[in-house]
Amino acid sequence: MDYQVFDTTLRDGGQREGISYSVVDKLAVARLLDEFGVGFIEGGWPGAMPKDTEFFERAKTELELTNAVLVAFGATRRAGLDVAEDPQVRALLEAGTPVVCVVAKSDIRHVERALRTTAEENLAMVRDTVTHLAGHGRRVFVDCEHFFDGFRHDPDYTASVAKAAFDAGAERVVMCDTNGGMLPSMITEAVRDVVRRTGVSVDRFGIHCQNDTACAVANTVAAVEAGVKHFQCTANGYGERPGNADLFATVSNLQLKLGLNVLPDGCLENATRVSTALAEIANIAPDTHQAYVGAAAFAHKAGLHASAIKVDPLLYNHVDPAVVGNDMRILVTEMAGRASIELKSRELGIDLAGHPETLSAVTRRVKDLEAGGWSFEAADASFELLVRRELPGGGFAPPFALESYRVQVEHREDGAVISEATVKVRARGERVIATAEGNGPVNALDEALRKALLPHFPQLKSFELADYKVRILEGSHGSGAVTRVLLETSDGERDWTTVGVHENVVEASWHALVDALTYGLARATSPA
Amino acid sequence: MDYQVFDTTLRDGGQREGISYSVVDKLAVARLLDEFGVGFIEGGWPGAMPKDTEFFERAKTELELTNAVLVAFGATRRAGLDVAEDPQVRALLEAGTPVVCVVAKSDIRHVERALRTTAEENLAMVRDTVTHLAGHGRRVFVDCEHFFDGFRHDPDYTASVAKAAFDAGAERVVMCDTNGGMLPSMITEAVRDVVRRTGVSVDRFGIHCQNDTACAVANTVAAVEAGVKHFQCTANGYGERPGNADLFATVSNLQLKLGLNVLPDGCLENATRVSTALAEIANIAPDTHQAYVGAAAFAHKAGLHASAIKVDPLLYNHVDPAVVGNDMRILVTEMAGRASIELKSRELGIDLAGHPETLSAVTRRVKDLEAGGWSFEAADASFELLVRRELPGGGFAPPFALESYRVQVEHREDGAVISEATVKVRARGERVIATAEGNGPVNALDEALRKALLPHFPQLKSFELADYKVRILEGSHGSGAVTRVLLETSDGERDWTTVGVHENVVEASWHALVDALTYGLARATSPA
Repeated sequence: MDYQVFDTTLRDGGQREGISYSVVDKLAVARLLDEFGVGFIEGGWPGAMPKDTEFFERAKTELELTNAVLVAFGATRRAGLDVAEDPQVRALLEAGTPVVCVVAKSDIRHVERALRTTAEENLAMVRDTVTHLAGHGRRVFVDCEHFFDGFRHDPDYTASVAKAAFDAGAERVVMCDTNGGMLPSMITEAVRDVVRRTGVSVDRFGIHCQNDTACAVANTVAAVEAGVKHFQCTANGYGERPGNADLFATVSNLQLKLGLNVLPDGCLENATRVSTALAEIANIAPDTHQAYVGAAAFAHKAGLHASAIKVDPLLYNHVDPAVVGNDMRILVTEMAGRASIELKSRELGIDLAGHPETLSAVTRRVKDLEAGGWSFEAADASFELLVRRELPGGGFAPPFALESYRVQVEHREDGAVISEATVKVRARGERVIATAEGNGPVNALDEALRKALLPHFPQLKSFELADYKVRILEGSHGSGAVTRVLLETSDGERDWTTVGVHENVVEASWHALVDALTYGLARATSPA
Repeated sequence: MDYQVFDTTLRDGGQREGISYSVVDKLAVARLLDEFGVGFIEGGWPGAMPKDTEFFERAKTELELTNAVLVAFGATRRAGLDVAEDPQVRALLEAGTPVVCVVAKSDIRHVERALRTTAEENLAMVRDTVTHLAGHGRRVFVDCEHFFDGFRHDPDYTASVAKAAFDAGAERVVMCDTNGGMLPSMITEAVRDVVRRTGVSVDRFGIHCQNDTACAVANTVAAVEAGVKHFQCTANGYGERPGNADLFATVSNLQLKLGLNVLPDGCLENATRVSTALAEIANIAPDTHQAYVGAAAFAHKAGLHASAIKVDPLLYNHVDPAVVGNDMRILVTEMAGRASIELKSRELGIDLAGHPETLSAVTRRVKDLEAGGWSFEAADASFELLVRRELPGGGFAPPFALESYRVQVEHREDGAVISEATVKVRARGERVIATAEGNGPVNALDEALRKALLPHFPQLKSFELADYKVRILEGSHGSGAVTRVLLETSDGERDWTTVGVHENVVEASWHALVDALTYGLARATSPA
């Protein structure tokens, strides 16, 4: 590869509030990043973090990487200590990685006020640490912390730190916008100036950007355009504060917009899958609006232009979604017409081209429902059920029929809040009554319904409510307004989303629940 | 101002999946944007969207703007139709705004394949529409759709569309990166080339960027650096697909990083508050990692550097958080919140400066509650109640005490859905039991509570539930997650908002209801 794609999801990305990887998580993250084709995976800080030490230990036997090499992160030796005696530097070597990345202070103010040492000792710390690590056969990268702020404040000192690292044998010196305050034009300017002052070729520098100006991706691209050949990113931009440069957007921009040779062939199309899987491991809801890889990245409200999009999708997409493993989605909205419904159905595997009457019936039905507050934008499963119900012989048989339900929420004198639901349904010719409690009315209803149906449909066991969203429509009418509920259900392998609308939140939830079970059971009993 | 800050949250921002503003919402959004100091507020597309037509009608009497003027959006006349006969153009004039913004096709492929007309007719459509609108005394901005894609494909044609608009009297021609595929360096290059080809001064152009490369903010900044003086953004970057250029990051970058005169004095510090309030109205969880305005934008894991940060916070923040109305947060320490709570209380007329113990108690209580999912950003009334409860002698006396309530929702065999609530409360020494029906569990509870209290508090008659919003937090735990309810109540003269949080939506609503009545009754019986 012409470029070093350096991923630090496991080290700097872990600084994001709320992320806490287990060692097993870390191994899984590394495998996914390798599939995406990055060249370097910074796995953590051995010695400083016990989990990271364990990760590098287990990686030696459990991690086989195809595209990437593992990198251990550490700091320059402590002030006033012999580098060979520094336990943190020793841990860095014990991690046994071919590459190490050490952070160095490069802003004189941080040297003096945070590190509380002298300009000269800091330079010695850089030289000693790099020499020592390189002497043990490691490729050494040096992250210059607060590089750009330091360079603006005292360019000579910051340049001298970079120079010291190169002179001691560093393969790359990485300019880190630690506080994230840069804009692309400033990066371009600074890179040019650094090269001039150090006399070192630009392609030996690297870039690491934080997103505090919402420009981390653009700043990284600007540095690469200025000649830098090494860039540090995190998956989905995870990181402290507003995060880091997002790996997927950065790589996609460089490869697709600038035509650079960044990833091994065939890797970029893993972007969407890897991004989503990494979000799952981090236990962060995937950002549906993320560039390139988000579920909405190529979503279009069809309406007027549906027919034009059908003929010429590339006139409406900045790249072909398939190259990043994503799909174009047509949203079924208020403005929906026949063309977009036909398109949407085809996306779901139902060809309505030969069924003009069904297409008309579905279009009418969608319009009626949308006038009443329904929305199928985010509820593909409910939309598919709707289409199949209209399709001659195509409907999923409803697995049960409701006789009645009753839900009660009680706030008792002792302060306890109790929710209880009773459902009476008919399933496979049998009448079933079941009662259950839950931590809210909808949860109680869900529990009671499952209890009633489980004997007939053991597959229900694997269904889990993954997300539940409530929206009140026409809020100006107060709590009497119409309520729309979106339910996301998962069977561990697939997710599907259903919708329900009613003036009563419980009844709206009931509709979405029934669709969720109907769809899931039909899927479970028919070939995918 | 030297720059035209053009906000299109209400028009293009509304394209984001899931956003659906009521007319009242739109009026509230416009007021907040005006407080933030934007110069132009694009309110919608009159004629095409009934809600937008109503918005412009009501805005004439209900909306007083200090910094902004209102803009109506529309399209060039239909092909083959006299501009004076085009109902959409007529609706644009009827909106009665001083400025109109019309979208024009500027990519020849879209002219031919989507509009299905000729290159020449499209130019005539631009000329006729601009001339007509300008002739009716409007300032006319022209959004050139797919400008950059068109310019790359056929620069002469795209330039001729811009030229036609200027020649017909357009004040600004806006280069729109509709598909969002640009990078900053490409913007710089294209702007230079466009100016060369059209011979029109760069400061008469505008820029509108979508975020499909994660570079919308950087692209907008690049255009401004290239000399453009008009830029279009949406609050929080809401918009179709990955969204638009975020208003707050763009303006902050231009003002704080480039030192440009973009907003009226004193407006930028409203950024965080306005951003959060707009998220609440859109019913989208605020992005805690958003640049400048996110709750985590200036959050630091304290650890090693806590004291260094305390002494020298600007070494660790790219700007002073206060300039955008945000706070530095030190995670895991007790430093968070005090200053903002004191500030917020003062805003509500309570001076806590002389009550350090109350300030500490309130800060602790807010932190505890926020850890449990409460949020007072949009619930001033609940916040004021909380402060007054901690203030010696400052509390509002609760007008009643709950003994218990019971709510039941029944879906009967005949399909009817019935909600019924019973409350048992103690008011002015008397025990009252009341039962009422409603069109949902919360409405039934509200009705029963009013019925119980009305004999004691006739003022309740004027209270009306004006809005009700539900958000499920930590959605990954399904319907068992925590629910946050925001209630807006009005007495015909004033509105106040209260919040309730509980795993049970009914109990969460109950908390918000109780706060709403407590606050409203205290207000009604005490001087404002």
